[in-house]
Amino acid sequence: MTDSKEIQFSKKRTWSHDLPISYLMQQGVENPGVLSLAAGLVDQNSLPVSITKSAFDSLFSDPGSARESLQYGTTAGSLSLRKLLLTHLTNLEQKSAEELGMTVDNFIVTTGSQQYLSLLGEVLLDPGDICLVAAPTYFVFLGVLQGLGARIISVETDESGMRMDSLDATLESLEAQGQLNRVKLIYLVSDYENPSGISLSIERRKQVVEVAQKWSKQHRIHILEDLAYRELCYDGPVLPSIRSFDQTGETVILTQTFSKSFAPGLRVGFGVASKRVCEAISDKKGNDDFGSTNMSQHILANALRENLYYDHVEYLRSVYREKRDCMLDAAEMYFSKLKDVHWIHPGGGLYVWMTLPDSIETGFQSSLFQKAIHEDKVMYVPGELCYAYDHWLGCNEQPAIQKNHMRLTFGVQNTQGIQEGMKRLANAVKSYL
Amino acid sequence: MTDSKEIQFSKKRTWSHDLPISYLMQQGVENPGVLSLAAGLVDQNSLPVSITKSAFDSLFSDPGSARESLQYGTTAGSLSLRKLLLTHLTNLEQKSAEELGMTVDNFIVTTGSQQYLSLLGEVLLDPGDICLVAAPTYFVFLGVLQGLGARIISVETDESGMRMDSLDATLESLEAQGQLNRVKLIYLVSDYENPSGISLSIERRKQVVEVAQKWSKQHRIHILEDLAYRELCYDGPVLPSIRSFDQTGETVILTQTFSKSFAPGLRVGFGVASKRVCEAISDKKGNDDFGSTNMSQHILANALRENLYYDHVEYLRSVYREKRDCMLDAAEMYFSKLKDVHWIHPGGGLYVWMTLPDSIETGFQSSLFQKAIHEDKVMYVPGELCYAYDHWLGCNEQPAIQKNHMRLTFGVQNTQGIQEGMKRLANAVKSYL
Repeated sequence: MTDSKEIQFSKKRTWSHDLPISYLMQQGVENPGVLSLAAGLVDQNSLPVSITKSAFDSLFSDPGSARESLQYGTTAGSLSLRKLLLTHLTNLEQKSAEELGMTVDNFIVTTGSQQYLSLLGEVLLDPGDICLVAAPTYFVFLGVLQGLGARIISVETDESGMRMDSLDATLESLEAQGQLNRVKLIYLVSDYENPSGISLSIERRKQVVEVAQKWSKQHRIHILEDLAYRELCYDGPVLPSIRSFDQTGETVILTQTFSKSFAPGLRVGFGVASKRVCEAISDKKGNDDFGSTNMSQHILANALRENLYYDHVEYLRSVYREKRDCMLDAAEMYFSKLKDVHWIHPGGGLYVWMTLPDSIETGFQSSLFQKAIHEDKVMYVPGELCYAYDHWLGCNEQPAIQKNHMRLTFGVQNTQGIQEGMKRLANAVKSYL
Repeated sequence: MTDSKEIQFSKKRTWSHDLPISYLMQQGVENPGVLSLAAGLVDQNSLPVSITKSAFDSLFSDPGSARESLQYGTTAGSLSLRKLLLTHLTNLEQKSAEELGMTVDNFIVTTGSQQYLSLLGEVLLDPGDICLVAAPTYFVFLGVLQGLGARIISVETDESGMRMDSLDATLESLEAQGQLNRVKLIYLVSDYENPSGISLSIERRKQVVEVAQKWSKQHRIHILEDLAYRELCYDGPVLPSIRSFDQTGETVILTQTFSKSFAPGLRVGFGVASKRVCEAISDKKGNDDFGSTNMSQHILANALRENLYYDHVEYLRSVYREKRDCMLDAAEMYFSKLKDVHWIHPGGGLYVWMTLPDSIETGFQSSLFQKAIHEDKVMYVPGELCYAYDHWLGCNEQPAIQKNHMRLTFGVQNTQGIQEGMKRLANAVKSYL
């Protein structure tokens, strides 16, 4: 009898090893004095304590509704919440449910929108299937794709988001290589993309639906639209989604979350998809957890029903607007005189994307990152994590991984922390110029 | 341009089609007058309304702890909760953490224990890998295995749970067929198995660790111990787990939930595994949702810390004991004169497993099921759903699927509903004798 045998993990387990998020979190833990402009948390002080308490109290003032929230829910999520989500979405789009071609049955509530992204990947992607993404894009979703064994192909991006001519050319090239049948998804963070802060222009939101449909020759190529930052808009109204330009709802799968606009600790997100995609997600989610936390859903439903949520979003916009302006002011103050350093002014979201001269690398192993964390006591997310590169496709077909960017967030620090962090970061950068 | 293309789902999506749980839930929805002895919900009236309110109020009385619960948590779950879980588990086992060979780092909090079961399957099982299960066993986990493309092989079971001689013989037979290298897991619901109500004897709990280690020739064969019903014991103390007989903790992976013993709407479960298995689960969970609902975890931590939880479990035992006795009394009253009908007296859990004469089938398509639901207005879970059968292995090697059982639950109905349901069910059965 032996008790020293090796574990034989599944093949897919080996694909989700060494994710950068783990390394980042570990750095945060190991270097407690470091001021983080990296952490993807939300602003601590503006979390909706009194609103949540009020919504909870209202829920628990009636034993019947309290018990309902403590019992199992359904896999797709609370029906009363899903009805409110439909209203919420039609308000955001300023279109009726009919115009949008959706009913409550198209909605599934998940553990943050992250779970929706993951479930969608599970039901659509086999190992070797292809997902097209912007360069740069949300690096945690790149980890999800990697964990599924999918091929990730980057598409060139400019100040209006993913370029439609590049997308079209990439699909054409894939067809020429006999790979079009492996393309399943185009992933887009339409509003204030994490990490770049760029929004996809309205014109391209229309175009991308047409491009996806044009290349859906052998099977449907879906667009997965991630609207995590949608409601955190600081300079203008909420933008219409890509989904709003897809009248049948057969091409675009939309996902949103209340993690950024309300409270991540409730873990409530949702997605909207066609009936067949919903069935697939629901079957997988039924196996995975039978449904997300029911009590959170009931609390959020009360906050939405009583308009507490909407007041909070207004308040949050003012909080984050101030913090964004603070970071941009600090960038101006500490970085504007540094040669070939520039950054994007985001109209919403939580991130400022900063570009250093080509010669300065920002990755985990770079001397800049190591100096910043150990000497200057400040941390950022290396931009290279946000680029995918498909080695099979080769270097002429897709944008190269860029190694001279930093993702800076104004989400978690207060204005003082933002200023101090930017000052420290400028110090670190200066020594490499 | 076309907009009518078929969706090409992933291969694994096709494996999780048509799960019986969906059919059961649909029957419940479509037949609202039906009295359900099938639904896997918990008793509605004993849900911990005032305890949850008290735990929430305590959490929200301090803005700092309130905010912490509304912020993102960590993928592995709240550290303060995991510390309490370690204490909780050592109390249940009546052994120290050292004796059990575990620390908080071995704990991962999940969305119910269901998510733990699913994650564990994901990180260990490739399509074609083998999991050994009792006959009968928890049918939702069979769905999880099916969704992963795993082979499920049944092992003979008697009134003391899975037979160790049969388990040993099955492994020997698999080795002879050159399939031992595909065996990854032995799945066991040790206490008051869903559906049979049978507990694995203490002797076999020791033996199964030895059997798993004996056959871990090429790689480690893990035992996945599902203790969902552990604390719902009505006739004696909590039993020591299989895990408690695995001193190094390298062989047994244990999972528990607060869905049955507290409130499923919080969706808090957890698992305990070796460091390497924890890393694998954590990586997958990081991609899937970054962590389960943080607020639920903080509420439960308060309930555990202030001993409110333990009082509630005592109370629940008395509630369910009465309901179990009610169902057994009703079985005696309505079924004892029916020839060749017998049932198991469970010492805990939520289920009574009833056996009809061999000639009476109970499946969804059987005339008994259809008559019960449409004429007698009562619903049960057909026993055959709880049996796996591996067609590759063949019929001589494993117990056949038995088609003459019913899983009856006393969880959701009150005593009046239980009596009425059993009366209706006896009526349905009688017409086939």
